Amino acid sequence: MTVTPPASLANRVIRIDDPADPRIAGFRDIRERDLRRRHGSFIVEGAVVLPVLLDAHEGGRFCAESVLILENRLEGFAERLERLPADVPIHVAPRAVIDAVAGFPMHRGVLALARESEAASAPLDFHAMAGNALVVAGQAIANHDNMGGILRNAAVFGADGALFDAQSCDPLYRKAIRVSVGGVLRVPFEHGGTGLSMVERLAANGFTVIGLSPRGEHDLETVPIEGRTALLLGTEGPGLTEGMLSRVTSARISQAPGMDSLNVATASGIALYTLARRMGRIA
Amino acid sequence: MTVTPPASLANRVIRIDDPADPRIAGFRDIRERDLRRRHGSFIVEGAVVLPVLLDAHEGGRFCAESVLILENRLEGFAERLERLPADVPIHVAPRAVIDAVAGFPMHRGVLALARESEAASAPLDFHAMAGNALVVAGQAIANHDNMGGILRNAAVFGADGALFDAQSCDPLYRKAIRVSVGGVLRVPFEHGGTGLSMVERLAANGFTVIGLSPRGEHDLETVPIEGRTALLLGTEGPGLTEGMLSRVTSARISQAPGMDSLNVATASGIALYTLARRMGRIA
Repeated sequence: MTVTPPASLANRVIRIDDPADPRIAGFRDIRERDLRRRHGSFIVEGAVVLPVLLDAHEGGRFCAESVLILENRLEGFAERLERLPADVPIHVAPRAVIDAVAGFPMHRGVLALARESEAASAPLDFHAMAGNALVVAGQAIANHDNMGGILRNAAVFGADGALFDAQSCDPLYRKAIRVSVGGVLRVPFEHGGTGLSMVERLAANGFTVIGLSPRGEHDLETVPIEGRTALLLGTEGPGLTEGMLSRVTSARISQAPGMDSLNVATASGIALYTLARRMGRIA
Repeated sequence: MTVTPPASLANRVIRIDDPADPRIAGFRDIRERDLRRRHGSFIVEGAVVLPVLLDAHEGGRFCAESVLILENRLEGFAERLERLPADVPIHVAPRAVIDAVAGFPMHRGVLALARESEAASAPLDFHAMAGNALVVAGQAIANHDNMGGILRNAAVFGADGALFDAQSCDPLYRKAIRVSVGGVLRVPFEHGGTGLSMVERLAANGFTVIGLSPRGEHDLETVPIEGRTALLLGTEGPGLTEGMLSRVTSARISQAPGMDSLNVATASGIALYTLARRMGRIA
């Protein structure tokens, strides 16, 4: 081996020199996997997001199944990798092998295959949430960048959970995870059902649902909020329908007159920031 | 012609049936042109952004040089296209021809080649700006999505101008224009110089420069602002250097403790919203 593994990992590191090695088949052609999970597994990549997975592993929502790492990145991750259960294989390979496996130059060089544990696929635990809980809900969020952006913002502003209807894309798509900078792995989420069923469940659990729209009745700065609050976002382009807006408390973000609306991920950032601030959840 | 052009355009529409027609050479393989302009021209595409260009044409900052449009989209754009000077050719083609020219399925089907007029390449006219002017400045904004997002937000919140240093990518890259939803064509901008020279020019023109950083000294909600205000954003990842932060008024966006920072485009949205609101520029 060109690079000697740290002593703590010497006994469990598996050296890979052939991109066709079946032990790393799960990492093959991951670019094509942007669009779906393979047998329920998903890809986590990068020096920022991988630690979130490894930490989440301990929390129980997600499990690493297998790790593939550039030989010269091993030392930097040794402390976290040591804590992985012994049955999680840690594969080490030189750059040419990693690039050949992935199907493109894999600059980050740190990858894991992961799956959801039962804890992650359980419904959100509304009973455990505080009286000033804040969650975000998305209806038909179709774009992976926006999904990732919303979950990044949810993590940054400390949201207690996220809900996406069945028309929304999978929050565990590779690109959504990457754009979320690990937010997908930090913020408990649900994915399924209809927009209407989300709104009904939130209301039944004591949430005031704030539907964000350029046509919203209230200004976001002054919309009445009290107790648990959910921010509801609509699909890219058309946004929330009039029918949905009529069922919730609608609010708008002030902007210059006559301009197009904000990107939905940016709007989620402004609204989560404003709500978290107004609710005294951030200093 | 399969679709008859509106009478008002019948005399000037040029029917294209061959993707290799030299009259539309400027539209060839536009995907590869994500990364640079060709002979100073840039590509504007889509039913949302093209009208911004056509309107900007009248304002004088940008000129359409040539239009290429799907035959069945012509009628919807007729009113705007009629106002184009007679020397701007309007090419009409069926879908197969447009896709073959562009090099990929061109769903939007409305394209223009455009160039900057002298007015657009002139420095920002600080003298003409109001006493409560708001501008945004970016240092080493390298990602086209972020460049487009910052300029979209600048347009939405009515910024008077934008400055980007020479290390930042070209705001007129195809993808930046698309992500900006035309904001690039609405907000006057400058591109060049160093971060330091931007800050010095802003200060010389009476701007308080607010440097945004997770390590900022003031909370964005209470940072002292008076008169002209500039929001300064740093490069993706590392953000503004300590040296730069020491030269400006530094401010942070409150967030949950221990989380990673916001994406720079999202941060620009939150900060422009907050500053525009605090300055009384948006209702």
